[in-house]
Amino acid sequence: MNMHVFDEAIALQAQDDGSFTGQTHAGYANMVGPFGGTTAAQMLQAVLQHPERLGDPVSLTVNFCAAVADGAFTLQARPARTNRSTQHWTIELLQDDLVVMTATALTAVRRETWSTDELTMPAAKPPQDTPLPEQHTAPMAFVQRYELRVVGGGFPTEWNGGDSGTSLTQLWLRDNPPRPLDFASLASMSDIFFPRIIVRRASPTPVGTVSMTIYFHADSAALARTGTGYLLGQARGQAFHNGFFDQTAQLWNEAGELLVTTHQIVYYKS
Amino acid sequence: MNMHVFDEAIALQAQDDGSFTGQTHAGYANMVGPFGGTTAAQMLQAVLQHPERLGDPVSLTVNFCAAVADGAFTLQARPARTNRSTQHWTIELLQDDLVVMTATALTAVRRETWSTDELTMPAAKPPQDTPLPEQHTAPMAFVQRYELRVVGGGFPTEWNGGDSGTSLTQLWLRDNPPRPLDFASLASMSDIFFPRIIVRRASPTPVGTVSMTIYFHADSAALARTGTGYLLGQARGQAFHNGFFDQTAQLWNEAGELLVTTHQIVYYKS
Repeated sequence: MNMHVFDEAIALQAQDDGSFTGQTHAGYANMVGPFGGTTAAQMLQAVLQHPERLGDPVSLTVNFCAAVADGAFTLQARPARTNRSTQHWTIELLQDDLVVMTATALTAVRRETWSTDELTMPAAKPPQDTPLPEQHTAPMAFVQRYELRVVGGGFPTEWNGGDSGTSLTQLWLRDNPPRPLDFASLASMSDIFFPRIIVRRASPTPVGTVSMTIYFHADSAALARTGTGYLLGQARGQAFHNGFFDQTAQLWNEAGELLVTTHQIVYYKS
Repeated sequence: MNMHVFDEAIALQAQDDGSFTGQTHAGYANMVGPFGGTTAAQMLQAVLQHPERLGDPVSLTVNFCAAVADGAFTLQARPARTNRSTQHWTIELLQDDLVVMTATALTAVRRETWSTDELTMPAAKPPQDTPLPEQHTAPMAFVQRYELRVVGGGFPTEWNGGDSGTSLTQLWLRDNPPRPLDFASLASMSDIFFPRIIVRRASPTPVGTVSMTIYFHADSAALARTGTGYLLGQARGQAFHNGFFDQTAQLWNEAGELLVTTHQIVYYKS
């Protein structure tokens, strides 16, 4: 059986000094450089594969400090503080000895408690009844790595430069080809929502995520329940102000479990 | 004129090795140790007072790795990457040479662009018509440092252990006594919302924030426009699952400008 392309992309090599090396993957290329979601997943992998790791991911913040160049990189993950059931991590991604990304993460051993999802899944036609795009016009390779079925708020079909008054997108998604969900793919999918200003304005705008935070509500049991099923993703911007806007997003599985809440702040030029 | 108590609390002393020292302040004490908002503000101050700083805060993520003890601490802020108009920071707070908090931040020189607030301020009676609590029953000192006028979703008046079905809180707030808003006070106010599980369940629950992210949409002009006016704060939890819940919050000024969007993930035991 062939390795899934996502597993190829997030493969890391442990080094004698405790660091990891990895490389960008042509299958997850963005317009320039790699898709940020895959890079976030690679940074998380440096924690997941670390011999001192305690528990599963609860939160991850990645900062896109400079453009990641296509090619090799080094990851340094360090447990900054280890408690009885939680562990705090600092991570850096370097290219040519320069810091390109910084990150912090929390892993924890979870215990069963009273639990509920307050934000319920929005009503949407099931994925099977939500059409695939008629043709993939996006030139970026990573878009082909996801099966994306847009419920509403899709990529503009024409640049009319107006103001739609809303940046809300809802879509079904899963890996293409399907792959059982894990923390790394959930991290990558958290960055699937294209820049909110594009939905709001339908105007070509230079953009770049500068920081993204992911809260994993899913534990390994919820991942197993989800398997290769679809996720419903929802994203919207809250404020756009003088060069930076935010976007807040959620990912539910088909059963309506809220697996991830995520936020990012994005540079834009207009 | 006396120094404002918040300025006393966030005062740092620059050291010869580039680090800063500071101390917790009894005026901002929580049940045990200091109020996390003040600690976040102190970490931000280490960036704001750093001689190499470029621009104003755009994002801040603080991780509460272990309990901050009352007393002195050391702050180390390092510019991980400096670009033409943006700068990425890593920050650590140490006590007895152990890492107690980690943080990352982005500062940037903003330029005027097309701007809008997509999430508009919820309707609420003006602060003057929203009563102060009849008596301050909260034993924590920091609560007295804020003028809090609850619009809805206040601290439960009795522990009935039910499930209200919602964790939404809306309140007006400002420093007590009033103080012109700045980035540090905005960081501290971002943590003013008491744990969402308390609103949802009205049951005494051990809790502790483990990570908080703040996106500053306000620039210095917006801070100046706000001055000592009230902010409308809104917070709610999205998911509560096996030991961790999130809360997402917003702060608007009286004119309805969205100054901050913020998120945190909180440990709970139930």
